[in-house]
Amino acid sequence: MPAPAEFLKYVDAQSDAFISRLSDAVSIASISGDPAYRPKVVEMSNWLNAQLQAVGVTTKQVDLGTHVMDGKTLNLPPAILGRIGEDKSKKTVLIYGHFDVQPASKSDGWDTEPFVLTKHEDGRLIGRGSSDDKGPVLGWVNVLQWHHETQTPLPVNLVFCFEGMEENGSEGLDALVVKERDGWFKGVDCVCISDNYWLNTRTPALTYGLRGLVYFKLNISGPGRDLHSGVFGRTVHEPMTDLISLMSRLVDQGGNILVPGVDDMVSAADTEERALYEKLDYSIADVEAAAGGKIALSQEKTTVLMGRMRLPSLSLHGIEGAFAGPGAKTVIPAKVGGKFSIRLVPPQTPDSVEPLVRTYIESEFAKLGSKNTMELELLHSGRPWVADWKHWNYEAAKIATEAIYKQKPDLTREGGSIPVTLTFAETLNCNVLLLPMGRGDDGAHSTNEKLDRSNFIEGTKLLGTYLYEVAAQAGN
Amino acid sequence: MPAPAEFLKYVDAQSDAFISRLSDAVSIASISGDPAYRPKVVEMSNWLNAQLQAVGVTTKQVDLGTHVMDGKTLNLPPAILGRIGEDKSKKTVLIYGHFDVQPASKSDGWDTEPFVLTKHEDGRLIGRGSSDDKGPVLGWVNVLQWHHETQTPLPVNLVFCFEGMEENGSEGLDALVVKERDGWFKGVDCVCISDNYWLNTRTPALTYGLRGLVYFKLNISGPGRDLHSGVFGRTVHEPMTDLISLMSRLVDQGGNILVPGVDDMVSAADTEERALYEKLDYSIADVEAAAGGKIALSQEKTTVLMGRMRLPSLSLHGIEGAFAGPGAKTVIPAKVGGKFSIRLVPPQTPDSVEPLVRTYIESEFAKLGSKNTMELELLHSGRPWVADWKHWNYEAAKIATEAIYKQKPDLTREGGSIPVTLTFAETLNCNVLLLPMGRGDDGAHSTNEKLDRSNFIEGTKLLGTYLYEVAAQAGN
Repeated sequence: MPAPAEFLKYVDAQSDAFISRLSDAVSIASISGDPAYRPKVVEMSNWLNAQLQAVGVTTKQVDLGTHVMDGKTLNLPPAILGRIGEDKSKKTVLIYGHFDVQPASKSDGWDTEPFVLTKHEDGRLIGRGSSDDKGPVLGWVNVLQWHHETQTPLPVNLVFCFEGMEENGSEGLDALVVKERDGWFKGVDCVCISDNYWLNTRTPALTYGLRGLVYFKLNISGPGRDLHSGVFGRTVHEPMTDLISLMSRLVDQGGNILVPGVDDMVSAADTEERALYEKLDYSIADVEAAAGGKIALSQEKTTVLMGRMRLPSLSLHGIEGAFAGPGAKTVIPAKVGGKFSIRLVPPQTPDSVEPLVRTYIESEFAKLGSKNTMELELLHSGRPWVADWKHWNYEAAKIATEAIYKQKPDLTREGGSIPVTLTFAETLNCNVLLLPMGRGDDGAHSTNEKLDRSNFIEGTKLLGTYLYEVAAQAGN
Repeated sequence: MPAPAEFLKYVDAQSDAFISRLSDAVSIASISGDPAYRPKVVEMSNWLNAQLQAVGVTTKQVDLGTHVMDGKTLNLPPAILGRIGEDKSKKTVLIYGHFDVQPASKSDGWDTEPFVLTKHEDGRLIGRGSSDDKGPVLGWVNVLQWHHETQTPLPVNLVFCFEGMEENGSEGLDALVVKERDGWFKGVDCVCISDNYWLNTRTPALTYGLRGLVYFKLNISGPGRDLHSGVFGRTVHEPMTDLISLMSRLVDQGGNILVPGVDDMVSAADTEERALYEKLDYSIADVEAAAGGKIALSQEKTTVLMGRMRLPSLSLHGIEGAFAGPGAKTVIPAKVGGKFSIRLVPPQTPDSVEPLVRTYIESEFAKLGSKNTMELELLHSGRPWVADWKHWNYEAAKIATEAIYKQKPDLTREGGSIPVTLTFAETLNCNVLLLPMGRGDDGAHSTNEKLDRSNFIEGTKLLGTYLYEVAAQAGN
């Protein structure tokens, strides 16, 4: 069931008006991480609420309470819940997006004013939030506008959840999702989130996995205070010697995790899954261009992509308490905390991996024969997520993508985390689809963030078409 | 040839006056490391110059030119050269000391005003510079005062070199020593420096060695910018993985240096030398009290003391460029610089050790098979120094110590550096003796710096007696 041809024509015809609306959205500097901009986030919530109402959505703005930032208690910006369509014979799709943005200022190195949407002749629509995530959110508004103006019923029921704190830990959202599970979100059949990116600049993508995380601080202490290496060198057990030795036992140069059992938890890809990686439109040159150096772990594309998407990884981030400044200070630091983290993939969970790390570190520390004291802290953790990419939700998105882009989408997994994905998947117990609108080079948290005009316009068509293909999957 | 009994009696009788003079000296806040206090350092030079002239010393204050501190060009405080006695039949002893001090303020945690000499009932004379180095410098003035008042000729000729920049790298001094080698310092037979400490609080010491230093920064770079561990974990060679691996190969938990050839350069102590360490009045409890933790590398006193005094040591100080703050940042740092240093002992020199480190690091880095880039920088270096402790200069000090303290002195080597020692030893090509006045717990660069009254008074007797014993060694 393709989208109506009139809808697709309308999107092309209205594209300047759509871009104008995106320009209005970008002009509201809704930076959630800076208390001074909090009124702008509230203004953005009000603006989006009005846009949704104008295209026929029943909404309510939800007070999420307060939080503390920079020592000040602030009101959280209101989330927006929306609903359109109540036809029990149709599937119900929950749409998530966010209307807050990362900080940005010209002095960071932007070529243009970040809060003025600038149309470049190469098609880029440059501005903070253009791609992350105001463009995708307005993509849904674009879709609704045609249906509203033409009084065409939507092929599915839609429920919306838009928040204004995504760039600052989605504070208050988890509680809202749990609270509304049997309320506003009752009867949701699947979720669609458009808040990530294609793997490259050429090929649309559907994303079905995210890695989890366990983040550790490995503390070693011994001396009562920092010591002088002239006076104490070779007389005492130095905490740094112990810490560096332990940190060197965590991961090898090939990226293999040396904590026994961690890599083993993940089974090898079968032929079908491996084929997904072989098909991905990505090269070692793409990896190295993104990293800014010829440092890929392998020259084999599938190996590198699996390393990022379907294998755990262990990174050493740094050391708290050691000498980190410029120059030559001859200190023996008294207490040092090594920071490292492991990105997790199913079936790993923080609960299953953390004891393996603890047992290994304790055993290796005992081998050192050091008189220092060791303590392992778990600073942060999150579970990984992988969706069933053969689910009708993905099938609908795949057919829609092929219809609009005349290309098969890359089926990708992300190496990082979008915590809200897991919240929806687990709380609502349904399939979640990540359906990116933007390209891999959009620079979401960087300078000169952009959304390509064609991604905004074709992306709008894709979102609309996806809804029709979900409806077409109704028999499944 | 013991010192005259009248001299010893005079020192006891004048002790309150001597302490009063020390009090005057401490009240001049001659902090060399703070531009705001530079006039105080100049005032201190003038004050000491007057004190020396008052007891018969011919002096000249020497302009050492300018230097740059905190972006400002400042005049260096004038050094003082002094001379008393020109009898060619007598030995000539060069005395070095410094009249500048470390910064201090009550807010650092001092119990008393740091620039007011406070006499505690337990005998401590508390104040900044009391022990480092105004007490020892005034010890020499005390000795001269009796000879001047009684018109008693000194048993040796004395040459003085007092500076006001010791706590800030002795700027300008090396050039002065070289310049005056065949001028003011011509004919010097030996050097005596009273600017270090007993090993403990009980036993006088003579110090005949200092360790040298090579300080390295091991840089690893690869990515063009800091990367996100979610996106790049297990896809690229991470600089931290390489760096931590290399740093873990430098020293083991027993303090043994793993760079081939470095430990091997130092021959084992022979029976005679080992006996020196066995005789030292020091315990493992002393080491652990000083370190603030039960972390001594061995329970064997001789092993620990040799580790500090006659063996090289390698300490890992920290990492520049890695994540060093609190919290959990999932960064893959693009460029990291590991700081480590090796304390050197004869026959090691920076020139002989640096190539061993470089060859080893290059070879170990090659083994990693990393695509990152490695660079080893030498940030700082200094040669070690060991004097012949059987020289008549030491013999004189030993006899003098036994005469005053009724104890054999500990024969010690320091783990750290006093660069000026090497300057005098090498430029003047003569024996240098370090003859400490203060105790191991004086807290030279710390809060509540003190010199015990008995160390000041008996120390004055020791300095005077040492001169007589040097004269007695004239036949050697």
